[in-house]
Amino acid sequence: MPELRRDPIVGRWVIISTERARRPSDFVPAVRPHKGGPCVFCGGQEHRTPEEVWALRPGRGEANAPGWLLRVVPNKFPALRIEGELEPTGEGLYDRMNGVGAHEVVIESPDHEAVIERLPAAHLAEVFRAYRDRILDLAKDPRLEYVMVFKNHGDPAGASLEHTHSQLIATPVVPLMVEEELAGALQHLRIKKRCIWCDIIRQERQDGGRVILDQDGFVALSPFAPRFPFETWILPAAHRSRYEDTPPGDFAGLAAAVQRVIGRMGQFLDDPPYNFMLHSAPLRAPALDHFHWHLEIIPKLTRVAGFEWGTGFFINPTPPEEAAKYLRGETLGPAVN
Amino acid sequence: MPELRRDPIVGRWVIISTERARRPSDFVPAVRPHKGGPCVFCGGQEHRTPEEVWALRPGRGEANAPGWLLRVVPNKFPALRIEGELEPTGEGLYDRMNGVGAHEVVIESPDHEAVIERLPAAHLAEVFRAYRDRILDLAKDPRLEYVMVFKNHGDPAGASLEHTHSQLIATPVVPLMVEEELAGALQHLRIKKRCIWCDIIRQERQDGGRVILDQDGFVALSPFAPRFPFETWILPAAHRSRYEDTPPGDFAGLAAAVQRVIGRMGQFLDDPPYNFMLHSAPLRAPALDHFHWHLEIIPKLTRVAGFEWGTGFFINPTPPEEAAKYLRGETLGPAVN
Repeated sequence: MPELRRDPIVGRWVIISTERARRPSDFVPAVRPHKGGPCVFCGGQEHRTPEEVWALRPGRGEANAPGWLLRVVPNKFPALRIEGELEPTGEGLYDRMNGVGAHEVVIESPDHEAVIERLPAAHLAEVFRAYRDRILDLAKDPRLEYVMVFKNHGDPAGASLEHTHSQLIATPVVPLMVEEELAGALQHLRIKKRCIWCDIIRQERQDGGRVILDQDGFVALSPFAPRFPFETWILPAAHRSRYEDTPPGDFAGLAAAVQRVIGRMGQFLDDPPYNFMLHSAPLRAPALDHFHWHLEIIPKLTRVAGFEWGTGFFINPTPPEEAAKYLRGETLGPAVN
Repeated sequence: MPELRRDPIVGRWVIISTERARRPSDFVPAVRPHKGGPCVFCGGQEHRTPEEVWALRPGRGEANAPGWLLRVVPNKFPALRIEGELEPTGEGLYDRMNGVGAHEVVIESPDHEAVIERLPAAHLAEVFRAYRDRILDLAKDPRLEYVMVFKNHGDPAGASLEHTHSQLIATPVVPLMVEEELAGALQHLRIKKRCIWCDIIRQERQDGGRVILDQDGFVALSPFAPRFPFETWILPAAHRSRYEDTPPGDFAGLAAAVQRVIGRMGQFLDDPPYNFMLHSAPLRAPALDHFHWHLEIIPKLTRVAGFEWGTGFFINPTPPEEAAKYLRGETLGPAVN
């Protein structure tokens, strides 16, 4: 059973995934290129994954058989496990609990060569709808407090399989980083009576220099204080704290914004490795005036080193005003839309 | 001039290092192997670095000439610059200030092939004394609030030059991560009237399973909730909040502990890339009852991916109790000391 442990000083939880305990000899360089032939996520290979928990099958075929456009399956090597009780225990200064949670994989296409920026926009919109449906379903489990949806693209960004997919990990505690966002935003609400992300959208629209796009209900921007070069935030223009409350018709706008941003990155950064992370309100929170869901995209271009790990400061060599110019396409010449 | 910018939601500062502004084409894979011949940090190449601010010259030779065992020089491409005033300014929601600070390099040996675990122990003790001397000197500058000393070893851990060196960045604000440690530890002091790190040492000594070594005034342990496989903390056994108050005679014990830990890692992890970070109290703090300086060592074996960036949770495949066994040398057989 994996275990959740809490650092007694800063309160950070870590997952000790004891079931795949690694001995030193297991830490080999992790480049595992696809060796030809269908991979475990390819169409026709459904028997090689755990049974699907959600799928999009336009032809209404059988579950776990070909004919799907999108499949969500439990992760075969889950960081947290769905069985069991939390059983929180103390041990002097330390706190631990069983590693209960969910870990699912969203296989975004049956095609091994697919990349999300070149999927039909309506197809990618269904990926975003799948996230919503899975969050709503997992929220029924009273042990779970949060669902983090994320995507690792490319080996340096932590993708262990190259077939396009995203992941979802549901945790029994609200993650520290979300708590920090909630706390900072609540302080802003208390003082200003406004959502801080709504304020950011307002200020960025006035200034313009960091806005990448503003269309179909979504705003993409280079944040004022980005940790990473070309870091991008995509937010719904209208206030909404819970991603899962998004009307299904809105996902087309989100898909278009993501395709534009990732597509541009691919043009001038040569298919960079990247992560995206969906920040939504905790599952048990009602609609909140101070939280505004958003998607953070971070290309993996720089190394995180001792200074960053020691301080929490980040050194970013690319000013966001420059990054936004590239991401708007201004520096690519007139032929690029 | 580099710029410090503050994220308005979580309060995290980032350094936008505008002077080495990176365009997309500059983000090439950063493997820059040494091409033979002396490098800029090698003995005899002193003219290729900025002028030294500290050096150990047993033969009392001239500054910036050969004959040194250790040199500290300003970083040629500093993340922060020593000239100028902070000039903090606001811009609606946003805060920024000039990137004032110091960025120095500690060249740990004139020998290009040296690694710290095989330096004479007395030599490495002088490296730790150099950190102390530089912190004491930088503390005289009233604009500076913190000095982070760190080492990046190996390309995946962010080292841009392979010649053994560590770095020191002095910042005009106390970093968020240090503030978080201070806040958590202060809460512990208020409730328990004790230093939390002293409590950790006490509990770990009783338990024993995570202690790696306990000798010459220093304790090395695998922390209860480590972010990374084989993460190791080294602490002075006696309470002390300010690294720079360490009596010079104590650095031999610290050097021995670091050499033992890094040496063991090298044996069973095949010279892993690693970072170490020195956490000391802020420069302007008096001796604190609740803070206890420590050195954190993190081998770079796993990839930090979307889940970690989104949540602040870490997934660690190696339980610290297992890691400590390897780091104590129990699993290497009787021939290894």
